Amino acid sequence: MNLRQRFGRALRLGVIGGGPASWIGAMHRSAAELDGWFRVSAGVLSSDAARSRAAGSALGLDAARSYGTVDEMLRAEAQRDDGIEAVAIMTPNDTHHPYAAAALDAGLDVICDKPVTHTHAQARDLAARVRAGARLFAIAHGYSAYPMTRLARHLVREGALGAIRLVQVEYIQFALASRIEDGAQTPRLRWLFDPARSGQALVMSAIGCHAQQLACFVAGQRVARVSADVGALVPGRRVIDHVSAQVQFDGGAHGTFTVTQAAAGGENDIRLRVYGEQGLIDWSHRAPSYLTLALQGEPVRTIGRGDAGLPSEVIAAGRTPRGHPEGLREAFANIYAELAQERVARTLGESLAAPLPYPRIDDGVHTMAFIEACLASQASGRWADVARD
Amino acid sequence: MNLRQRFGRALRLGVIGGGPASWIGAMHRSAAELDGWFRVSAGVLSSDAARSRAAGSALGLDAARSYGTVDEMLRAEAQRDDGIEAVAIMTPNDTHHPYAAAALDAGLDVICDKPVTHTHAQARDLAARVRAGARLFAIAHGYSAYPMTRLARHLVREGALGAIRLVQVEYIQFALASRIEDGAQTPRLRWLFDPARSGQALVMSAIGCHAQQLACFVAGQRVARVSADVGALVPGRRVIDHVSAQVQFDGGAHGTFTVTQAAAGGENDIRLRVYGEQGLIDWSHRAPSYLTLALQGEPVRTIGRGDAGLPSEVIAAGRTPRGHPEGLREAFANIYAELAQERVARTLGESLAAPLPYPRIDDGVHTMAFIEACLASQASGRWADVARD
Amino acid sequence: MNLRQRFGRALRLGVIGGGPASWIGAMHRSAAELDGWFRVSAGVLSSDAARSRAAGSALGLDAARSYGTVDEMLRAEAQRDDGIEAVAIMTPNDTHHPYAAAALDAGLDVICDKPVTHTHAQARDLAARVRAGARLFAIAHGYSAYPMTRLARHLVREGALGAIRLVQVEYIQFALASRIEDGAQTPRLRWLFDPARSGQALVMSAIGCHAQQLACFVAGQRVARVSADVGALVPGRRVIDHVSAQVQFDGGAHGTFTVTQAAAGGENDIRLRVYGEQGLIDWSHRAPSYLTLALQGEPVRTIGRGDAGLPSEVIAAGRTPRGHPEGLREAFANIYAELAQERVARTLGESLAAPLPYPRIDDGVHTMAFIEACLASQASGRWADVARD
Amino acid sequence: MNLRQRFGRALRLGVIGGGPASWIGAMHRSAAELDGWFRVSAGVLSSDAARSRAAGSALGLDAARSYGTVDEMLRAEAQRDDGIEAVAIMTPNDTHHPYAAAALDAGLDVICDKPVTHTHAQARDLAARVRAGARLFAIAHGYSAYPMTRLARHLVREGALGAIRLVQVEYIQFALASRIEDGAQTPRLRWLFDPARSGQALVMSAIGCHAQQLACFVAGQRVARVSADVGALVPGRRVIDHVSAQVQFDGGAHGTFTVTQAAAGGENDIRLRVYGEQGLIDWSHRAPSYLTLALQGEPVRTIGRGDAGLPSEVIAAGRTPRGHPEGLREAFANIYAELAQERVARTLGESLAAPLPYPRIDDGVHTMAFIEACLASQASGRWADVARD
Repeated sequence: MNLRQRFGRALRLGVIGGGPASWIGAMHRSAAELDGWFRVSAGVLSSDAARSRAAGSALGLDAARSYGTVDEMLRAEAQRDDGIEAVAIMTPNDTHHPYAAAALDAGLDVICDKPVTHTHAQARDLAARVRAGARLFAIAHGYSAYPMTRLARHLVREGALGAIRLVQVEYIQFALASRIEDGAQTPRLRWLFDPARSGQALVMSAIGCHAQQLACFVAGQRVARVSADVGALVPGRRVIDHVSAQVQFDGGAHGTFTVTQAAAGGENDIRLRVYGEQGLIDWSHRAPSYLTLALQGEPVRTIGRGDAGLPSEVIAAGRTPRGHPEGLREAFANIYAELAQERVARTLGESLAAPLPYPRIDDGVHTMAFIEACLASQASGRWADVARD
Repeated sequence: MNLRQRFGRALRLGVIGGGPASWIGAMHRSAAELDGWFRVSAGVLSSDAARSRAAGSALGLDAARSYGTVDEMLRAEAQRDDGIEAVAIMTPNDTHHPYAAAALDAGLDVICDKPVTHTHAQARDLAARVRAGARLFAIAHGYSAYPMTRLARHLVREGALGAIRLVQVEYIQFALASRIEDGAQTPRLRWLFDPARSGQALVMSAIGCHAQQLACFVAGQRVARVSADVGALVPGRRVIDHVSAQVQFDGGAHGTFTVTQAAAGGENDIRLRVYGEQGLIDWSHRAPSYLTLALQGEPVRTIGRGDAGLPSEVIAAGRTPRGHPEGLREAFANIYAELAQERVARTLGESLAAPLPYPRIDDGVHTMAFIEACLASQASGRWADVARD
Repeated sequence: MNLRQRFGRALRLGVIGGGPASWIGAMHRSAAELDGWFRVSAGVLSSDAARSRAAGSALGLDAARSYGTVDEMLRAEAQRDDGIEAVAIMTPNDTHHPYAAAALDAGLDVICDKPVTHTHAQARDLAARVRAGARLFAIAHGYSAYPMTRLARHLVREGALGAIRLVQVEYIQFALASRIEDGAQTPRLRWLFDPARSGQALVMSAIGCHAQQLACFVAGQRVARVSADVGALVPGRRVIDHVSAQVQFDGGAHGTFTVTQAAAGGENDIRLRVYGEQGLIDWSHRAPSYLTLALQGEPVRTIGRGDAGLPSEVIAAGRTPRGHPEGLREAFANIYAELAQERVARTLGESLAAPLPYPRIDDGVHTMAFIEACLASQASGRWADVARD
Repeated sequence: MNLRQRFGRALRLGVIGGGPASWIGAMHRSAAELDGWFRVSAGVLSSDAARSRAAGSALGLDAARSYGTVDEMLRAEAQRDDGIEAVAIMTPNDTHHPYAAAALDAGLDVICDKPVTHTHAQARDLAARVRAGARLFAIAHGYSAYPMTRLARHLVREGALGAIRLVQVEYIQFALASRIEDGAQTPRLRWLFDPARSGQALVMSAIGCHAQQLACFVAGQRVARVSADVGALVPGRRVIDHVSAQVQFDGGAHGTFTVTQAAAGGENDIRLRVYGEQGLIDWSHRAPSYLTLALQGEPVRTIGRGDAGLPSEVIAAGRTPRGHPEGLREAFANIYAELAQERVARTLGESLAAPLPYPRIDDGVHTMAFIEACLASQASGRWADVARD
């Protein structure tokens, strides 16, 4: 029996933030439950108690455990035998520190979205609380948790590249390419463009911290010195949308660091290259299931998730066999969701605007007719007709 | 409120097959629950009742609803007020027809793995039962449920390519490249290499049906005639590992169809190209979040999931913003799983073989120090040191 | 001294066809002279003697050796001490056989554009003449002369893939996507759409013969049997613009063959994949300097022209070091051509419509200022200004 | 008649450097002659007069015009009616300035390899001589002469991206990844590792100047300020193999600049990205015939050389139709070279070590048999045999 089976149940998680309209909220909750390690058991989904309850039910939470404040949740859950054992925080950046501190002080583990805090001092404060309470604390830097970024770290660690000489990381994004701060202000935009809420350097809070963490994670070195060009590429902007820097790592490597959210036409491209004395590795979010390894004097290798001979820590980070992108799960989920929509609509006596495109039994009938026609063609050496129904 | 919220609860799903060791079982269950449309409520996870119960608990099922046979599950669930409303079938191919027929006859909807049945006649039989009982029936052809294959279909339908002239589909895989039938025989290998259990043409059951379904789905045409080269590329093999064919569609298009599982060195490459009088579309599983559209006389376009202006049916099939591969969810899940493993191990008084690589508070401390050093460098126009802790 | 140096001079070549307006003519002539093996010494550039002479001069030929007919050239050159030793034929397809036959009978070697002839019988006739006269005869199948297709052949030959099981070749092109036969008819279109002049199957004469030759060249097998879908994808067309086929090779491999010129939106995509019992190779014209080699159970390798350890026959087929595409030569040629245009225009007292973009001395001044500023920044640890002139 | 035809002859070029063993020498000479604008008429191929003559003959030069020194060539050619009109310089870097200055003073145009000089002051000196003598001066920055980098410049100029905000250029190479300065020293290595001969910053002389020039060429801005990390990535090295920098352009754009020759496993990767307020362009040497254009809110476009609607300056920089990489010329040249080798070997009574792989008449016979079998299969609806000879 594996660890999960020996434990016999899921850990109970309370979520802070990430209401029904938030994609990152759904990501956190479904990720927490994906392998059965956690069950979302309580939450603060709105600072308005009634809204929080409504949102909780929409997500399948018990109404009694949909709280109006973090404080209320921590107190109430502490009273229950089946109280939460950890919290996941996905609220605006300025609240990460107080919520995380409160949860740690309540004896809970914390999974926190990035940036971990507003300031270095706040982060050190959390670190002290983690140590004092022997708590666990994870930051949602997803890029470092792909099987292939894990493999990258493994290769660096085992010396496949030799001593590391140069690290290039970049994260190029389009989200702030236009002056969205001049248009209608949603609550999200309001806190994003308020440095008191979103962080000292917006682009670093939003994506730069991911790039730095991934570089350090894979290279196994921390940044020792930096020379940076920091500012706004978009004229007249008052928040920081661009940082380019040279860095030097504590292990001796040099590095380049480039992040911007003002790249009109860009996508969401985080890419890491690490160069050592024997060769280089190259990983890009565009093709996250592959890692390029180029050793001097040898053909370039493209290692795919699922290839033979991968280390166990890489295998453990994947869930589908070779050649199946993880997104296949979501494609399967679409089929389930569409059949469910059709069933639910029928149950409620509603009709759908258009038929849903999931594969149906008639498609199966055609497939079987096609297979039989292939066999008939082979047998006759001629063209064969496919049965019509 | 959307349909799911108005319905107020998840549909109850019974699973048939897909025990703890099966990756496709975990795919089906997590896909069913991903958006909260279904909750896995019952299952037949083994034909041995005790094993089924053990497997059920390992997956978080109620022991009372972990059954030893399909028949038992259908009868017992029919007695419950909260009985299952649908079944998902992921057993060896020869059992699809009897299990699906029984579930349909019990008034349940069915989600069935492919190939839908062994023969065309069996598929027609299921189609008749679906119609007779007004049931819903979905086949797990995930490739046609990606946002970008949905977009491909949309473009063909709305005439972006003009009349369709040529369809090229291929699925090239490595799984049967060596004579695995000569080695130690697992139960899975035993039924795979028994045509009575796996299907008349193994490669068609395994992957060819996906290729045909995807081509028909996107082109909006069914196959009318076929001229095929069917057989085994691996010498001495007694099952079919390769089919190449020319096809003609009922809408007038010509096509090529190539599937093999004997491609040593191959990955799991399904690719579809559709050519019309105005241009072509090209989709490959290697980069499932992108679709190439090339219209005659214009630059080639690469359309990404999340791009502006996509049709609502494509938007509905995605869950993350532009540039985030769906697999990011699994990366997040790794972070949750690793923190959970560490917590559970501590709770059980066990120790982990090695520290797990999820981002911790110390990483957050370094990130915040790095951000502050960038700002200091910008302020001074010089290199700045990054605080060490 | 190498063979060329020991020989001490270039071979003298006569060209048949490929006047000043023909891109393929310029390709043949510059290719012939590229390494100094040939010098274009005579030609028949038009069937009109005056035009042929004018065209000859425009190309730098001696007016006396610009002939009005092939017969005239063969007779006159035979009288000269420095007469031509070979001919290159790049005329409409129906003339390949008579011109090649005449040249062979005159004791000359022949380089002939494809398709070699109109019919199998004509090709056999040429083969007999080649043997009888101990002549050399090359067909301009350029795709098989790239370093990486040479490497592909080498790998197959040396058994890197084991026994060959499957060969997939395709050539997908756009040139006949619209009904160009209905518009204004240039001389070229007139002969192209006349099967008596362009060949029994237009798409095979134009591109299909390249695909077949490349597949046979690399696989080292000839086609033994074929089952084909042959016709026009464009409605109402009277020539053949599409052939899809299954093939079986004399060495036992199966194959797929797909060529069309009716792919609206397509480019000029010839791609070859060869699968053996140990792995596969994949080459595409899109990236002709790279070859993919995927051996079962190992990471995919991308071998680049210039990589260490390539066989001598591959090295011999390249002219630039690793990582420099061959097209760099043409980029260099642009710089030479632009400076020359400016000089010639000045000499003729003409002015150019716009300044040409080649790099000039002022660009060099800026480069040197930039390099010195980099060094100054490093020395000061600060930003450095770049000198303005 | 075009300019070249009106001029009626090629310009006469003298080459300085680039003996028979030098690939860059062959590049320059073949590029100069490719379109007939220049004819290489004289040269200094070695500082030893006898060797220079031998090398000149090997390249097809008149022995009388193969000189032992630049001075000798300039003086002798000035006396001839058909003397050279321009020189191309491809000698070690420290000689560029004196040779270029002498040629300019002799009234000749100059095409000079990079880096143009050793110092900014020398470059300014050449600029003054160019202006004084109304000479032309080109620097061999080939990357800026590809059709697609020309298109990139055109798009920036015409405002397709709006105001330019950010420019990223990098050139990552492997040539100095190991300590080649410690091994046996060829003459080339000796001057390369001597900063007095190769330049103040080796990596800038070798490749960095290309990266800077390309960025400025496309962005249409010059560098105004720089903050650089300059040094050696390879421990103990005394020359500069790495420069990373932030730059600011005189037009207001920010930029990143990264060049190294110490990237073990790297290839020869120069890549340029330019970001404006409306979108971005991306060009890489890996696929030089394509340019990516991504405008905010629209699908990404991949523009290929030969696409419809390109500006005339881009069309003028290409020589083959859409989809044909320029390297196809070299593939053709291989066919000519191989037939020639066989003919020359026969003439000299030598035998070749192995048969050469160019397509021969027997291949043509097989092609025609294949075509006829395709037609027979279509006619019969069955498999057809391919004739064996």
